Amino acid sequence: MASSWGRRLDWDTGRVDMTHGAGGRAMAQLVDELFVAAFDNPLLAKKNDQAVFEVPAGRMVLTTDGYVVSPLFFPGGDIGSLAVHGTINDVAMAGARPLYLSASFILEEGFPLRDLRRIVESMARASREAGVPIVTGDTKVVEKGKGDGVFISTTGVGVVPAPVVTPSGERARPGDVVLVSGTMGDHGVAILSSREGLAFETSVRSDSAALHRLVARMVEAVPDIHVLRDPTRGGLSATLNEIAQQSRVGMLIDEPRIPVLREVTAACELLGLDPLQLANEGKLVAITDRRHADRLLEAMRADPLGTDATIIGTITEDEHHFVQMETAFGGRRILDWLVGEALPRIC
Amino acid sequence: MASSWGRRLDWDTGRVDMTHGAGGRAMAQLVDELFVAAFDNPLLAKKNDQAVFEVPAGRMVLTTDGYVVSPLFFPGGDIGSLAVHGTINDVAMAGARPLYLSASFILEEGFPLRDLRRIVESMARASREAGVPIVTGDTKVVEKGKGDGVFISTTGVGVVPAPVVTPSGERARPGDVVLVSGTMGDHGVAILSSREGLAFETSVRSDSAALHRLVARMVEAVPDIHVLRDPTRGGLSATLNEIAQQSRVGMLIDEPRIPVLREVTAACELLGLDPLQLANEGKLVAITDRRHADRLLEAMRADPLGTDATIIGTITEDEHHFVQMETAFGGRRILDWLVGEALPRIC
Repeated sequence: MASSWGRRLDWDTGRVDMTHGAGGRAMAQLVDELFVAAFDNPLLAKKNDQAVFEVPAGRMVLTTDGYVVSPLFFPGGDIGSLAVHGTINDVAMAGARPLYLSASFILEEGFPLRDLRRIVESMARASREAGVPIVTGDTKVVEKGKGDGVFISTTGVGVVPAPVVTPSGERARPGDVVLVSGTMGDHGVAILSSREGLAFETSVRSDSAALHRLVARMVEAVPDIHVLRDPTRGGLSATLNEIAQQSRVGMLIDEPRIPVLREVTAACELLGLDPLQLANEGKLVAITDRRHADRLLEAMRADPLGTDATIIGTITEDEHHFVQMETAFGGRRILDWLVGEALPRIC
Repeated sequence: MASSWGRRLDWDTGRVDMTHGAGGRAMAQLVDELFVAAFDNPLLAKKNDQAVFEVPAGRMVLTTDGYVVSPLFFPGGDIGSLAVHGTINDVAMAGARPLYLSASFILEEGFPLRDLRRIVESMARASREAGVPIVTGDTKVVEKGKGDGVFISTTGVGVVPAPVVTPSGERARPGDVVLVSGTMGDHGVAILSSREGLAFETSVRSDSAALHRLVARMVEAVPDIHVLRDPTRGGLSATLNEIAQQSRVGMLIDEPRIPVLREVTAACELLGLDPLQLANEGKLVAITDRRHADRLLEAMRADPLGTDATIIGTITEDEHHFVQMETAFGGRRILDWLVGEALPRIC
């Protein structure tokens, strides 16, 4: 088939080469025939180095995340869908409505164009399903051996609707209630199960999903949620410890109430890992005033991504900012956060 | 010295390791003691996964760029200052006032912490001098041999002041005048001169600089500039060809009027390169209605970054969208854009 660029890109056997990042014709063709075509929106189609759009006056949210997950494709997703979901979620955790995304690609010379297209089409699908278009971007290429296939940094902007009080890590207060939206550790186990050398049998899929619609229901039910955060790298344990430090409080968590899939527990026992230190990519932690907890829980459970939502504990006064767990056996232990690496390149 | 994290980071001999990207304590310490300390602003200090700020109603700009420049340090800058300047410039090219930046770091295991600190402090300085804070970010670490020291993706947001008509690549009209803000090719030659195997004697430094104050003067003088773009990768030749295609016009450029430093010409002759295909990181191209050209030129020359500003040509009707050059010898040639790679990892 003809292309306005002359020779068409070879999607079957072609590979990324240094010209695809050099600012010349080859790059312009890749941008045109892959990114602009897949992401398909009028702002990107303008092909300027930036997107310009109207916003109402108010609170705006900006967030960015790099994605270096390995392997690039895993049960339940790939680096493309993950890069869209993860950044939408970081916008949503401010109680905000995500508006637009940007994407910066760092490609390794020699990476198959076919795999790149698969990733970009997955991003496009995730973005379309979420209703959050990718409106600007950038592509760089590094020499073979100086990268690892594809790295993606996505940035999201959004607006916080007027009645919403911005949730923030330092707003947890003694007496507040801690909720999670669903099972912990799925993403971590899904990635591990797809790694060479670690392959084991499991049906667990990544929970990678965009949480902005769940959050919209939540802030509609309770406009003043004190804290919202997605427990990604470091898992629930890192997230709760971060919040305890930011808010200068302690927590008392009822361990048996934390939802964990049986297959995740089994895989963690096999590998000597703690599901609470494994990354999630479609779950959130919410902390709210006790008076609003039931209303918030109800709103969460009404959303397809919150059906397993549960109250797991309360905020306490604690000058040491410890996160304590009440175990199934009636004892208590301190939930420390990840010290070592546990799982590199989980997202 | 004591640290709230226990053992202090070893800035003399320490190196990035996988724990610095794992979401646990080591990462939290690096974020605290390096990024939050250097970038030093209240939004980042909140340590949420996103920044929230007030914006007025109006046109907002979003732009992102990945930086993979090699070497990381070069005459006139480093990857850190470049990542700040480049993204501020892409915001400014929409006629906008840059408000905030985000930064996503992809670090290679084993990279010296001392070099990382030098880069981050350079970013902090560039951001402070420009008055555009880095308010949110992310850090990932990949295994040794899967990256190349440091990659940075920066994203910028800004607002277009009310009277300004947004410049855009498709707005060049036959009869319009083309201006450049200064000498072409400095950044490309500076990078080349610092590459191993290509080292040659030159005093040329990168022109890396934030152009938003120059642009503010320009849009104040001429609120309706048709096109503004910074000729980075691919140089002036790629930028003019892109604009010609977007606007479906031709151009007639008076080659001898294009400012090029004598040392840049000399280096290019030595290396067999064209200064018009070399990247710039502190220059812009402006296209405006002929009636406003002199006013715009005057405003540009009044700025320290525009003292060498020059009118270099005009927009023509041309169904082939050719960029034609009138040479010093009275002939004409077509200025094609970069076909091969010329200079990989120039930014």
